[in-house]
Amino acid sequence: MNDGRSLQERLVTTDIGEAIFAFASEIYPICRSITGHGVRRTLDAIANHIELEIREVPTGTAVFDWVIPREWNIRDGYIKNQQGEKVVDFAQSNLHVMSYSVPVRQRMSLTELKKHVYTLPDQPDLIPYRTSYYNDNWAFCMPHRLLESLPDETYEVVIDSSLTDGHLTYGEYLHRGETEDEVLLSAHICHPSLANDNCSGVALLTLLAKRMAGLRTRYSYRFLFAPGTIGAITWLACNEENSRRIKHGLVVSMVGDAGGPTYKKSRRGDAKIDRAVVHAIRHCGLTPTILEFLPWGYDERQYCSPGFNLPVGLFQRSMFGAAAEYHTSADNLDFIAPNHLAMSYGLIAEALDIVESDAVYCNTMPKCEPQLGRRGLYGAVGGDKDAVSANMAMLCILNFSDGTHSLLDIAERANLPYPVIRRTAQRLQQCGLLTQSGDAPALSGAAKVSAGF
Amino acid sequence: MNDGRSLQERLVTTDIGEAIFAFASEIYPICRSITGHGVRRTLDAIANHIELEIREVPTGTAVFDWVIPREWNIRDGYIKNQQGEKVVDFAQSNLHVMSYSVPVRQRMSLTELKKHVYTLPDQPDLIPYRTSYYNDNWAFCMPHRLLESLPDETYEVVIDSSLTDGHLTYGEYLHRGETEDEVLLSAHICHPSLANDNCSGVALLTLLAKRMAGLRTRYSYRFLFAPGTIGAITWLACNEENSRRIKHGLVVSMVGDAGGPTYKKSRRGDAKIDRAVVHAIRHCGLTPTILEFLPWGYDERQYCSPGFNLPVGLFQRSMFGAAAEYHTSADNLDFIAPNHLAMSYGLIAEALDIVESDAVYCNTMPKCEPQLGRRGLYGAVGGDKDAVSANMAMLCILNFSDGTHSLLDIAERANLPYPVIRRTAQRLQQCGLLTQSGDAPALSGAAKVSAGF
Amino acid sequence: MNDGRSLQERLVTTDIGEAIFAFASEIYPICRSITGHGVRRTLDAIANHIELEIREVPTGTAVFDWVIPREWNIRDGYIKNQQGEKVVDFAQSNLHVMSYSVPVRQRMSLTELKKHVYTLPDQPDLIPYRTSYYNDNWAFCMPHRLLESLPDETYEVVIDSSLTDGHLTYGEYLHRGETEDEVLLSAHICHPSLANDNCSGVALLTLLAKRMAGLRTRYSYRFLFAPGTIGAITWLACNEENSRRIKHGLVVSMVGDAGGPTYKKSRRGDAKIDRAVVHAIRHCGLTPTILEFLPWGYDERQYCSPGFNLPVGLFQRSMFGAAAEYHTSADNLDFIAPNHLAMSYGLIAEALDIVESDAVYCNTMPKCEPQLGRRGLYGAVGGDKDAVSANMAMLCILNFSDGTHSLLDIAERANLPYPVIRRTAQRLQQCGLLTQSGDAPALSGAAKVSAGF
Repeated sequence: MNDGRSLQERLVTTDIGEAIFAFASEIYPICRSITGHGVRRTLDAIANHIELEIREVPTGTAVFDWVIPREWNIRDGYIKNQQGEKVVDFAQSNLHVMSYSVPVRQRMSLTELKKHVYTLPDQPDLIPYRTSYYNDNWAFCMPHRLLESLPDETYEVVIDSSLTDGHLTYGEYLHRGETEDEVLLSAHICHPSLANDNCSGVALLTLLAKRMAGLRTRYSYRFLFAPGTIGAITWLACNEENSRRIKHGLVVSMVGDAGGPTYKKSRRGDAKIDRAVVHAIRHCGLTPTILEFLPWGYDERQYCSPGFNLPVGLFQRSMFGAAAEYHTSADNLDFIAPNHLAMSYGLIAEALDIVESDAVYCNTMPKCEPQLGRRGLYGAVGGDKDAVSANMAMLCILNFSDGTHSLLDIAERANLPYPVIRRTAQRLQQCGLLTQSGDAPALSGAAKVSAGF
Repeated sequence: MNDGRSLQERLVTTDIGEAIFAFASEIYPICRSITGHGVRRTLDAIANHIELEIREVPTGTAVFDWVIPREWNIRDGYIKNQQGEKVVDFAQSNLHVMSYSVPVRQRMSLTELKKHVYTLPDQPDLIPYRTSYYNDNWAFCMPHRLLESLPDETYEVVIDSSLTDGHLTYGEYLHRGETEDEVLLSAHICHPSLANDNCSGVALLTLLAKRMAGLRTRYSYRFLFAPGTIGAITWLACNEENSRRIKHGLVVSMVGDAGGPTYKKSRRGDAKIDRAVVHAIRHCGLTPTILEFLPWGYDERQYCSPGFNLPVGLFQRSMFGAAAEYHTSADNLDFIAPNHLAMSYGLIAEALDIVESDAVYCNTMPKCEPQLGRRGLYGAVGGDKDAVSANMAMLCILNFSDGTHSLLDIAERANLPYPVIRRTAQRLQQCGLLTQSGDAPALSGAAKVSAGF
Repeated sequence: MNDGRSLQERLVTTDIGEAIFAFASEIYPICRSITGHGVRRTLDAIANHIELEIREVPTGTAVFDWVIPREWNIRDGYIKNQQGEKVVDFAQSNLHVMSYSVPVRQRMSLTELKKHVYTLPDQPDLIPYRTSYYNDNWAFCMPHRLLESLPDETYEVVIDSSLTDGHLTYGEYLHRGETEDEVLLSAHICHPSLANDNCSGVALLTLLAKRMAGLRTRYSYRFLFAPGTIGAITWLACNEENSRRIKHGLVVSMVGDAGGPTYKKSRRGDAKIDRAVVHAIRHCGLTPTILEFLPWGYDERQYCSPGFNLPVGLFQRSMFGAAAEYHTSADNLDFIAPNHLAMSYGLIAEALDIVESDAVYCNTMPKCEPQLGRRGLYGAVGGDKDAVSANMAMLCILNFSDGTHSLLDIAERANLPYPVIRRTAQRLQQCGLLTQSGDAPALSGAAKVSAGF
């Protein structure tokens, strides 16, 4: 923070939306599941950008109430009609085979086949996304119209998959800050070709980590890329002691569509990260949806389980499950866009900036207002209406900086954007009217703030 | 609770509305007041259903700031015109004579008579209900149209009543539960032929007590049938010490009309009974009216006086005094109906079920979610939208059962009906994922819950 | 309070609005600033009504972060065109010369002159009000239309002012009550011919002080007439120790227009004065605007600075800066009216009455309701709808007077006007049903309350 620019200003670049979109496009085709080579390929792609540490946990390892399952890999899958034509082909879309399908190679009637087919009758042109991680089963997913068009004949059904002892794989990257206190940023990497859920989240966090690598921060930032549920549980089981360092956190998923933004608060409900994200969203010009915590959604379910109760919220665009494209083949690269990704990135960066810099400062002249005019801080001619908004932030910071209100408190009280309050507090600190209190960070270094203040 | 069914399920029967209506119809014709034979006849009728204990407190007994008044009884009352025709006749409606009217036998002019007549000019066809318990006086109540039709002649006015030393009479029935902690259920029995106010309440509580008699409950339930105000004051004066056992309570009045439901909270405002009734009403599909406590209404005024401050609320359909039929001859048997009585009974039963079973339970596996799937508790195929609502209750109970949230807290937080939360908690307790904490009751006995779970 | 009348009843007279308007009109023409003879003339006018103590603080005196500035006086000011005609003349309106303008006597082109002219292009017929207290400068203020009509020629520009060592002048009046605890009532006296801002506030407080002079009160009342900002800061610097006596306070400004009423709460937000004014306004029949504290407005900025944090709110009609007439020549005597002034006076008087009399009383018969009927307090005939509202106040006072609720708490809970609660509490105290608790004042003296109760 030594150049006086906020973390948000230092993190955001003009091409960030395009960069996130490009990386999401790169990993979109990979067939991921909660284990297997698809996860490894995705982590390798991330490791091209940041110094990712990749962990492998063997099948059978107990992680709290769970056990690491067998590793699943798939090479091919199709349904051939009597003419030998592939009417459904895994090579066309990895959504066609239910994730964790056991191998099958069989001829069967349409009636028999239908017991192993999922469709969406209400969205008849889309392929649904289905999984069966802990129940040995197999199935194909296909458009409802396709199923209805299949003649009543015998089909050759092949799923060339394997379920064998292997590993669960996840990756993490730690950006070291001035303290060991951590901010957790987590994305799930277990979904196959679904662009928003969660190529968008994986790509956003990868680019955020890459951009942050060159920056000095107060907190250490832990970026976790792990399969949903079992991956988060595994990380928590392996890091139970370390998890106490997590002071703030966000689960990031589905951040590329045009909806929302949506924020689901941590189980605590009033954690600093909750207030920071809500504040950032409220000042973004969109209509946000703010939700209280419920244990329904993504890996915040594990981070916020009562035995951990970490201050971790969920940031999304469209609300979990609310978009028609959710968990279907319509969640493709057309569903996400660079401008939405850039907006999501910007909001997360602003929330992180608040978490980084928010603290309680103290007015050094608490009796009556200090004379701002002779310090060149105040519009000199009384009655000039243009000076009003510039002065409001100063007066609010001075009035409420009594040792009990943080900058975020003051921003909320004054209904002003946090960056305005933060910049103004920098200015007041430079003038000696505001001092740090307790463990508050310095708002600005030796360098002067820019003239554009 | 040992068969796994909720108290509400065990209390409600399909014919309950008809049964309450029939009993209300039976006691409707009786001329009740705050003392006298009408009260005794009503208590005798109740005693045909339950083992009622009837108390008699002598005239002149001091009860806090009050004194038991003389006992009032009435045999006849009429106004005869010069032709000797009864233009007003107590035998036609016991509302015609103001309650506690002193005896009178006199000839008088219309002008003189009018000083002792109450009518409702705005509801000219109805007889008003009037009382004068503590002021020696007499009066007739009649339709305004009738009064206006009376020619200016001499009338023979007779009220054949008596005001003599006697007793105040009330009845109580104690259903003994597993503990001595009590739930108070109170109805006033001092109104003459008013069907909703309060034959409906008396009948509802009588049938509730009758139905409860065969059931095992956690709490003891005290059913009190007493004249309004002076009766409740008398009971409190006679049971000051015992009143401390009352942990929850409801005054039940006017529960047979089509309005409401209305609930006025106890003076405490956040008592368990307040939250239980509000929760039950909010999930009933009607538009409820929830009122903060004011010392205006029925006997909750006494139970919630500052010297007692008992957690007792008021359950009604139309709000106190809000219906046009209130305290008039239009409050007859046409004003109440079995379906409304059944709905009121069901809501009260559900509130009592909450009070009975609500407690704090503890998740035995608080670190991350337990693996519900391998216990057969979770929809096996990820993405199946039908499994969503069934799973939400489980996840919420597990997440919030951290030793600080009760089942009712969780129902409110998850915005799910308490019975769903309760049944789901039973299931989780059977699986060993939930344990009792402190004095929480077992949610289910040895018997399995039904397959229809 | 010994005659049983409330402070509000004793303060308000039928002609109060006319009297305030007359005094506002008297002081309106004076050219005031933060120092100088205009302030002295205004204080002299106030001193004709009350025993005002006038203080003079020398130029150069340090008051916290500020220094008393040089004293400014002005004799004349004009702009003459080439024909020698005064196109702008201070004698016509003292708004024409920016307050604290340094002396000038010069010939200059229109282009040069324009650098020293303020207008309001959006309100082209009005003269703006401008000041430059702490920046040596000079300027004329004029209607935008006038500026646009000036031909491009040479003008003679004269401001015959002086800026010399002198004094800052303010006045205060202390009405001594039964205790040394004080209520601060403060108005700024630094604006020239602006009728609402703040001749109205100065006049209202002068007449309030005059009317109060003959009355016995519980609190002492300090009336402060001082220049805005520097005057309040000076008073606080000179009275830092004494300021601790201030238990309640109001800044009174712009109280004569038809808008509002508006109340901005003290920094504490829940001070008694905040609740008192809000209650009074809510029951006045107008639509009030209630604002949370922000350090933007009048001298509450100083009283509520964190080093003092006094319980002082701001009472206004139109909200600060919201009226189009604000700080323009349209804020003249046509903008204010006796009826608005009377309404403001009445609301302030009612709030002061609440502050004077509000206290916790105790029900002497807390177990069940006392029998109001035999004390003649209760409508004798049950069912008489007219008795309802009269009884509600009694029952609420008795129920909530448990040692934790003050009369104002009860008025808010019962949603009844404080005067009704206060009068009813007097009655109950006379009957022995209510006793004082702690330092509560007697609600009534020996004299009976009037029959009109």
